[in-house]
Amino acid sequence: MRNIKLVIQYDGSRYRGWQKLGDSDKTIQGKIESVLSLLTNEKIELIGSGRTDAGVHAFKQVANFHTECDASEEEILTYLYKYLPKDIVVIDAKEVDERFHSRYHAKGKKYLYRIWNSKMHNPFMIKHCTHIAEPLDIRLMRNATPNFVGKRDFTSFTSRKSKNKSKERELYSIEISKDNELMDILFHGNGFLYNMARIIAGTLIEVGTGRISAESIPRIFEKKDRSLSGPTAPASGLILYDVEY
Amino acid sequence: MRNIKLVIQYDGSRYRGWQKLGDSDKTIQGKIESVLSLLTNEKIELIGSGRTDAGVHAFKQVANFHTECDASEEEILTYLYKYLPKDIVVIDAKEVDERFHSRYHAKGKKYLYRIWNSKMHNPFMIKHCTHIAEPLDIRLMRNATPNFVGKRDFTSFTSRKSKNKSKERELYSIEISKDNELMDILFHGNGFLYNMARIIAGTLIEVGTGRISAESIPRIFEKKDRSLSGPTAPASGLILYDVEY
Repeated sequence: MRNIKLVIQYDGSRYRGWQKLGDSDKTIQGKIESVLSLLTNEKIELIGSGRTDAGVHAFKQVANFHTECDASEEEILTYLYKYLPKDIVVIDAKEVDERFHSRYHAKGKKYLYRIWNSKMHNPFMIKHCTHIAEPLDIRLMRNATPNFVGKRDFTSFTSRKSKNKSKERELYSIEISKDNELMDILFHGNGFLYNMARIIAGTLIEVGTGRISAESIPRIFEKKDRSLSGPTAPASGLILYDVEY
Repeated sequence: MRNIKLVIQYDGSRYRGWQKLGDSDKTIQGKIESVLSLLTNEKIELIGSGRTDAGVHAFKQVANFHTECDASEEEILTYLYKYLPKDIVVIDAKEVDERFHSRYHAKGKKYLYRIWNSKMHNPFMIKHCTHIAEPLDIRLMRNATPNFVGKRDFTSFTSRKSKNKSKERELYSIEISKDNELMDILFHGNGFLYNMARIIAGTLIEVGTGRISAESIPRIFEKKDRSLSGPTAPASGLILYDVEY
């Protein structure tokens, strides 16, 4: 069996997320599997590096699938480009070792959270960032980031629906930059729990408005209580930025 | 009668263009007039600096309307922000001299034409630029721009449907820049005929691929024949960038 690794870019606005739901066609995984099944005449199962929620985007999602077809990498890429909807683009296809697994072998991930911070929203960015009308103090937000970095138990910063037994993850860095009205929060870690990037983003937004202080964050970690952290920031601002192996 | 000048930003993807068509609600002018009529309890007629075609965007469109209502500038702005769809944002409202006319008094305009020049399209930019898969030679394109600049008869570079008697316009400059895959062509002139920016963009794209030479452009002007210039580039790449008074 050949094992093919794909690198995928998508605008998640129109979809119910990465993961296939029954027969639903409105998922990224479902769309790509359908096209691959047509190409290969096989029932293809696509293994993603992880799920993304409804409305979340990807600059670089990684997935792999096994096949017995003899299409070349170039043929697979061309076929996917031709038959996928325009908001999903497979930018690379490579044959890899048969043991490669997109999810198990991922060593690190980057997520980008984008905020349009201005009194009025931007009509061109509605689906690709989150609008925050209140002024955000970037110094307060940057001061708070060291509280999240390192190996920690993120129970207070994941959805109560999270099914992972261990809530321990390691964040390598959080970088916040600003270009006029557009604020970017870049998260880099070894893995992310369900809604973790969005809840940390939501908490950092509360820090930026002054509603949560940087000093209170260690206690929020200690209490292991989701109700103490900030709200889950909207999906539209989140982009899976990179997956590292 | 008060005269109110508006500055408007819009993503034109969902609309049939600026100009109201009968009872159609799918125009930018129609949407704004409806909201203003609700605010003022008057039948409002909005005068735009010019039309934009279906799918064309604006960073800065200017329009004005006359009213007898006593709403403050701030109240007008807030009301429009609240009731307009998210892809139309009025970013400024100012009371101006009663003789000010958005169209007649416009001294200059800037249009931006955006091209995603890469083998594959970008899933985030589908509606906000034009995808050209063939490599474009920016040096060839820049060499061609002086042929368009100056006071000229643009008959070969406007739609045959153009109703303007005089086809003479003055282009002050055409600047082409590139940031990775994204190429920007910025036009600055005293006025633009119907489809003029899109036809010049289409011609410059043909120059970039080598299908039209810079040397042939003076002859295309001389012949006053639309069939000799390049195709009308797609509306999605065009943005009304600024209106000068």
